[in-house]
Amino acid sequence: MTQLESPIRHAVITPDISVTELIDQMSGCAFGAGRLAEAVDIYTAMLNERECTRFFGLAGAMVPAGMRNIISHLIREGHIDVLVTTGANMVHDVIEALGLHHYKGSDLVDDIELKHNQVNRIYDVFLPEEHFTDLEDFLQSTYSQLSDQTISIRELLTHIGSHLEDKDSILKSAYDANIPIYCPALQDSIIGLQAFLFKQNAKLVVDAFADMKEFMDICYNATRTGALMVGGGVPKNYILQSMLITPNDFDYAIQLTTDRPDPGGLSGATLEEAQSWGKVGERARSMTIYGDATITLPLLVAATISRIGEMR
Amino acid sequence: MTQLESPIRHAVITPDISVTELIDQMSGCAFGAGRLAEAVDIYTAMLNERECTRFFGLAGAMVPAGMRNIISHLIREGHIDVLVTTGANMVHDVIEALGLHHYKGSDLVDDIELKHNQVNRIYDVFLPEEHFTDLEDFLQSTYSQLSDQTISIRELLTHIGSHLEDKDSILKSAYDANIPIYCPALQDSIIGLQAFLFKQNAKLVVDAFADMKEFMDICYNATRTGALMVGGGVPKNYILQSMLITPNDFDYAIQLTTDRPDPGGLSGATLEEAQSWGKVGERARSMTIYGDATITLPLLVAATISRIGEMR
Amino acid sequence: MTQLESPIRHAVITPDISVTELIDQMSGCAFGAGRLAEAVDIYTAMLNERECTRFFGLAGAMVPAGMRNIISHLIREGHIDVLVTTGANMVHDVIEALGLHHYKGSDLVDDIELKHNQVNRIYDVFLPEEHFTDLEDFLQSTYSQLSDQTISIRELLTHIGSHLEDKDSILKSAYDANIPIYCPALQDSIIGLQAFLFKQNAKLVVDAFADMKEFMDICYNATRTGALMVGGGVPKNYILQSMLITPNDFDYAIQLTTDRPDPGGLSGATLEEAQSWGKVGERARSMTIYGDATITLPLLVAATISRIGEMR
Amino acid sequence: MTQLESPIRHAVITPDISVTELIDQMSGCAFGAGRLAEAVDIYTAMLNERECTRFFGLAGAMVPAGMRNIISHLIREGHIDVLVTTGANMVHDVIEALGLHHYKGSDLVDDIELKHNQVNRIYDVFLPEEHFTDLEDFLQSTYSQLSDQTISIRELLTHIGSHLEDKDSILKSAYDANIPIYCPALQDSIIGLQAFLFKQNAKLVVDAFADMKEFMDICYNATRTGALMVGGGVPKNYILQSMLITPNDFDYAIQLTTDRPDPGGLSGATLEEAQSWGKVGERARSMTIYGDATITLPLLVAATISRIGEMR
Repeated sequence: MTQLESPIRHAVITPDISVTELIDQMSGCAFGAGRLAEAVDIYTAMLNERECTRFFGLAGAMVPAGMRNIISHLIREGHIDVLVTTGANMVHDVIEALGLHHYKGSDLVDDIELKHNQVNRIYDVFLPEEHFTDLEDFLQSTYSQLSDQTISIRELLTHIGSHLEDKDSILKSAYDANIPIYCPALQDSIIGLQAFLFKQNAKLVVDAFADMKEFMDICYNATRTGALMVGGGVPKNYILQSMLITPNDFDYAIQLTTDRPDPGGLSGATLEEAQSWGKVGERARSMTIYGDATITLPLLVAATISRIGEMR
Repeated sequence: MTQLESPIRHAVITPDISVTELIDQMSGCAFGAGRLAEAVDIYTAMLNERECTRFFGLAGAMVPAGMRNIISHLIREGHIDVLVTTGANMVHDVIEALGLHHYKGSDLVDDIELKHNQVNRIYDVFLPEEHFTDLEDFLQSTYSQLSDQTISIRELLTHIGSHLEDKDSILKSAYDANIPIYCPALQDSIIGLQAFLFKQNAKLVVDAFADMKEFMDICYNATRTGALMVGGGVPKNYILQSMLITPNDFDYAIQLTTDRPDPGGLSGATLEEAQSWGKVGERARSMTIYGDATITLPLLVAATISRIGEMR
Repeated sequence: MTQLESPIRHAVITPDISVTELIDQMSGCAFGAGRLAEAVDIYTAMLNERECTRFFGLAGAMVPAGMRNIISHLIREGHIDVLVTTGANMVHDVIEALGLHHYKGSDLVDDIELKHNQVNRIYDVFLPEEHFTDLEDFLQSTYSQLSDQTISIRELLTHIGSHLEDKDSILKSAYDANIPIYCPALQDSIIGLQAFLFKQNAKLVVDAFADMKEFMDICYNATRTGALMVGGGVPKNYILQSMLITPNDFDYAIQLTTDRPDPGGLSGATLEEAQSWGKVGERARSMTIYGDATITLPLLVAATISRIGEMR
Repeated sequence: MTQLESPIRHAVITPDISVTELIDQMSGCAFGAGRLAEAVDIYTAMLNERECTRFFGLAGAMVPAGMRNIISHLIREGHIDVLVTTGANMVHDVIEALGLHHYKGSDLVDDIELKHNQVNRIYDVFLPEEHFTDLEDFLQSTYSQLSDQTISIRELLTHIGSHLEDKDSILKSAYDANIPIYCPALQDSIIGLQAFLFKQNAKLVVDAFADMKEFMDICYNATRTGALMVGGGVPKNYILQSMLITPNDFDYAIQLTTDRPDPGGLSGATLEEAQSWGKVGERARSMTIYGDATITLPLLVAATISRIGEMR
């Protein structure tokens, strides 16, 4: 523990340095820089291990912020085997897939004035309220093919993905790649609100627990497992809790978060704490990166895919 | 805006000061103290307004931390009309209701050693793994009465509450008081994992969208509305999004959170941002208190019930 | 470590509950509530131990926020033996002592408009720029008695305190009680800027290191020591580093902070880390409370002085 | 304000992407990514403007973490005209300059055991206590040439820098480049503790206010000004307060911080708040990046020097 073997190597920055070289420089540093470099090592090992089943947890408003293509490209490149996310990220993915945009805005604004202009705000992103009309038309049209069925949430999302054309869409990419998307709180989104409205006049039952069997089967059958979790919330917990009823535990775990452990919530819980539950393995390689994931996720992905040399 | 009318009054602390008197002292202060005092004013007005429908959002590990009785007493006193929470809080409520305990522990521990001792950790709370056996027996027994039905998540939680005896239980108190508990991501908890296991040999369909109609009816029919949200996550978003498809918006809104706006997620979003969406009204009284809710919730509740003079 | 001896006792809140009773309820809880209750135990023990020399570190904009009387009363009651603070807190203490006010404002404002109205903002506190004219007149008048001397920063602050009349002033209370105030970065304040302007036409030398001897003598001669630190910054480090060149270490240490350990700075460093340096003793009682000190300091002080039963 | 002109462009990550290209991708994104890209624009403009006087504020444990060469190279390249920092960063700069190392360690350790092994911890950096013996010998030897003088803190640091050989040293680089280093709280460091010990037997007066004239002259004479501030604390405030007594205000301002505005302290105060004081100009370009500066500083510097194409 107290061995003094690796001196801090101070980062040297040169013009035109690549992200991979920057991470190499950070690998001799401490604090967040050192942790990020270590996370790149872990993510590289995780993607390089062929038999590893890779889970990706996506919380936070990552799609409105511009992280959509990173996720969809990771899916298309085969780096995500299971995606667990929030309804909101899927809502915003569909909006973009319909050719509608989110806009760069500001957080220093008069929100009442925005409302009067029918602009919704997500921190410094602006979204015209009229986009929701197109979204709702699309969803109702899509749902109309589903009457008189009992399906799972995963099946509902696969169905939506099958109706999209946009190759950069997360839902479409997952559909094309046959990758399941789980979204335990789908009700908690406009996709859910529209499903409720559809159900007023149609018989559609979305069974909340229906997709847990296939999710658990994936976990149960996996030889080796790894999880990259962006934010906490339901996606993080849902991925980790899978190990409570299977004999496995995660061999790799990385979380990118702004939450700290001290308020006690699961979102900010350390990956060490997850070891006490048997969710993360005793010999797992794990790392937490504190900070805004719109900065740390692109860095992590850029350095990792450069190392494994294959993303296009 | 730039009028200088209210000088800062420096807080004076006296021995044996009551919480209400302390909040009065804080009302002349700025930063968190001033915001907390303002939140007490808002919560007092919200509880005093008879026609106001009061929503309570409960995220975070509040039950393991010791906040359970505060919630159940608020329900029993009639201060909560609708509770939206996480599966985890309900899991830990049932554990306590079965006479099992959470224990004071430490966050400075060896989690591998904890695991070997079959103790699960939630920050500085310890939970013996064997408690889950009793919990699972209880849940399976409770579920066994539900075969061959299609029910909503709210109905499932009401059913569980009806089987508990503990007056301090949130589920039992809600059952007794006929207060609905919504939990959109119930799958994301041991209650959900056990429902999945039960479904392996039984026909139970829990319709993910089934309880949205009654939830929306409550929102639609409310004359006046208020929300107190502890933490963010699904409970916060689910409460606020209800206003997107009703003509109403919240008249009162208070959030106790450790999340900041800058990472862009909904959990840390300001209540002003919610105004741009029409979730919180233009003339609403709203306040965000930053900090650990195990400190700020008891303070808020203690001062408010002292003012309205009725909690027992 | 993994003994399960103390079940979580869920807090029960009753109308008209006192702060001390609330802390008693929190003592059975976890997370921030449990930590706060433990800090009250430690602070009570620290104030009750007669031979204990009590250090108080005051960073952050605590005086503008309304915490001034709490500090000055602690001094007058004999609960602070050494105060280490920032220049800014002393600047705002003098402003109030001159009968000038800080005002409750808002953080949601147009700062350019504020500037045009000659109002300076400190988060949600407003300060009229004209107050600085009175402050500067007072300081120049006070400094004029100090020409041709070499004095220490502590002596300069004592001198300023001797010219104030306001019993609620921190500087005046410290002067009356013969309590030293150390402020290593006094240049970093308007008191410093005015000293610089005074020096343009006068010979006044304030020796940066002159008061370290008396400070170190206090540390060296102390039998037992305790530190309550509000915020980090220079006050925290200056208090703790004293133990690097004395054979002592702190027997009690409490910090109220919003900084976390992970960015690596001293402000957020744990008190355990301070043990590796020998600043905090191996058997010390120590506690960190995360959160806004305008909430946690009044709570801590109210409960502690109620227990020791003596503050007036 | 509510114009919707710039759609979010989702970041596309390719293998071997350079840091500059990554920042270009981030420039179409929101949240932290968008803010970082904007900060690169601002820092590029600030470094490209010939008549701009550039201030650099350095707080936090940036030298122990491995950021030393970035700072010293910025000085050598002419990108820093005035450095304001903490005593601790200078202490650790001297330790490295003496050929001694900081070591990569861990934050998950037993600090009592570390103490028994005479290893001091700075989050996940380990520092052998014996290094301080060499440091103290060096400082006492250096101070011995200064007896019977009254000098400023800046002069003391220049003197120390003149005795170092290491080109990567911040103190040495500043000495070679004739760049002043200001450190208002030098007492609050081991350099200060050793100066106090030296003074026990020697006449050395370090005038706390002596270097404010040259600092203010720089501010007063500057045509255009820019500030890059890493962390808050004394360096941030000292840089910004300079504008209170000069007719200027900052034309460029960037802060990299983990502090938020809501606790009210200066460290987390927004740059908009600084406009109300006239510290940052009405038409200034300014940006705050929230996050660990060991990640954001290398990114900011790498992209900026690539754009201006000159750092070696």
